[in-house]
Amino acid sequence: MRIDVLSIFPDMFAPLTQSMIGKALEKDLLQFNVTDFRKYSHDKHHHVDDTPYGGGAGMLLKPEPIFEAMDDINAAHPGKKRVILLDPAGKTFNQGEAKKLAKEDHLVFICGHYEGYDERIRSLVTDEYSLGDFILTGGELPAMVMIDAVARLLPGVLGNAESAPTDSFENNLLEYPEYTRPPSFRGMDVPFVLQNGDHGKIDDWRLKESLRRTLQRRPDLLEHADLDKKAQKLLREVKREQRTKYTDEPD
Amino acid sequence: MRIDVLSIFPDMFAPLTQSMIGKALEKDLLQFNVTDFRKYSHDKHHHVDDTPYGGGAGMLLKPEPIFEAMDDINAAHPGKKRVILLDPAGKTFNQGEAKKLAKEDHLVFICGHYEGYDERIRSLVTDEYSLGDFILTGGELPAMVMIDAVARLLPGVLGNAESAPTDSFENNLLEYPEYTRPPSFRGMDVPFVLQNGDHGKIDDWRLKESLRRTLQRRPDLLEHADLDKKAQKLLREVKREQRTKYTDEPD
Repeated sequence: MRIDVLSIFPDMFAPLTQSMIGKALEKDLLQFNVTDFRKYSHDKHHHVDDTPYGGGAGMLLKPEPIFEAMDDINAAHPGKKRVILLDPAGKTFNQGEAKKLAKEDHLVFICGHYEGYDERIRSLVTDEYSLGDFILTGGELPAMVMIDAVARLLPGVLGNAESAPTDSFENNLLEYPEYTRPPSFRGMDVPFVLQNGDHGKIDDWRLKESLRRTLQRRPDLLEHADLDKKAQKLLREVKREQRTKYTDEPD
Repeated sequence: MRIDVLSIFPDMFAPLTQSMIGKALEKDLLQFNVTDFRKYSHDKHHHVDDTPYGGGAGMLLKPEPIFEAMDDINAAHPGKKRVILLDPAGKTFNQGEAKKLAKEDHLVFICGHYEGYDERIRSLVTDEYSLGDFILTGGELPAMVMIDAVARLLPGVLGNAESAPTDSFENNLLEYPEYTRPPSFRGMDVPFVLQNGDHGKIDDWRLKESLRRTLQRRPDLLEHADLDKKAQKLLREVKREQRTKYTDEPD
């Protein structure tokens, strides 16, 4: 895969090399390049933004630098590509979208700063994404988040120690509580079942705690979870325990 | 406000100084510190992680280094603080949460890497957040996103040119299309209404296009939008135009 980023803050992307991107680059599974589109500005002060037509606060990214930076990327890499704009009005990014993007050959991220973009920039764009309903200074941080989520899904990036399928969301259940040494720390003990090595009981405990946490925190995920007979039974147990807990409490 | 971050990748936070954090630090509106909690590890190889009880792939963050790093932060800054863990099982971060956090005196972000945390670490935590339903390499990037969203809300950080209230989500409507020079670019023209300076007409056009975009992309937001008489009338016009557009199309 190749990933291009258009940003006037190229240095912001340095930390990505400490994340999965670093591993993907080392293993030659990814080409990654950040273009400072300020070098495509036409005036002597290297402005990439201008005031909005019709008045209003804030500055808008001008179309020319972005279009010309894209011209150069298209000339050097003429293949099919997804051109992604980070925008609060875009579709919400999630693990399903990350998986789709991980199958592409070439992604281009356009990162805005300032108040917004000239609307014509959207004509270059194949996909608009938003990380969520919050407002950020610019598109760089959400682009990094998306790149991290996509890069870790490229075949060969994750080692055996970090295999993706057990993570949250992969099976629509949140992860069960985990413990490492020491067995007792500041008065808090590792549950006995995890210490005694009966793998059948450990699996049941983990599935049940996974169901409990999902029920407590993200019951919406359970609607899409594919639960087998055993999971359905454990979920009924969890629900019964919750009811008992509340009715047992003193008034 | 003071923000502390616990991370074994402190260099990843360097780019934040190029965002709003930089402005907030310059203006002395924010104290920001990243603690590498690896320095609190007890063994000679400076391990911060260990294998999970009960077996399974991946490594877990050990409790001791995080607890001891928090002990030092609490000793130096004994006041009330929110201790935030980035976790897929946490509540979804949004602009409302950003506003709440922006009113706090002291935020501490605990960033995990590896597969997960020893469950006892959660006993330190006041708030668990998730950016969305996707999986990342670690907590650093989502912490940076949250810090950026919060820091830009601190009084005095945003200049007049970037005043927050007109942004998307502030009034539950997506932003209208914006244009800057040139008036014509690669065959695409700036809408005439924006070029002729009639501010009443410009305001109406913008409100209508804002409603149109929200209706097309995020109709869920309209349910929570507080629309006055004029906005309600424009929304009816938009809906009528949509119907006309579809019924006018040739078979």
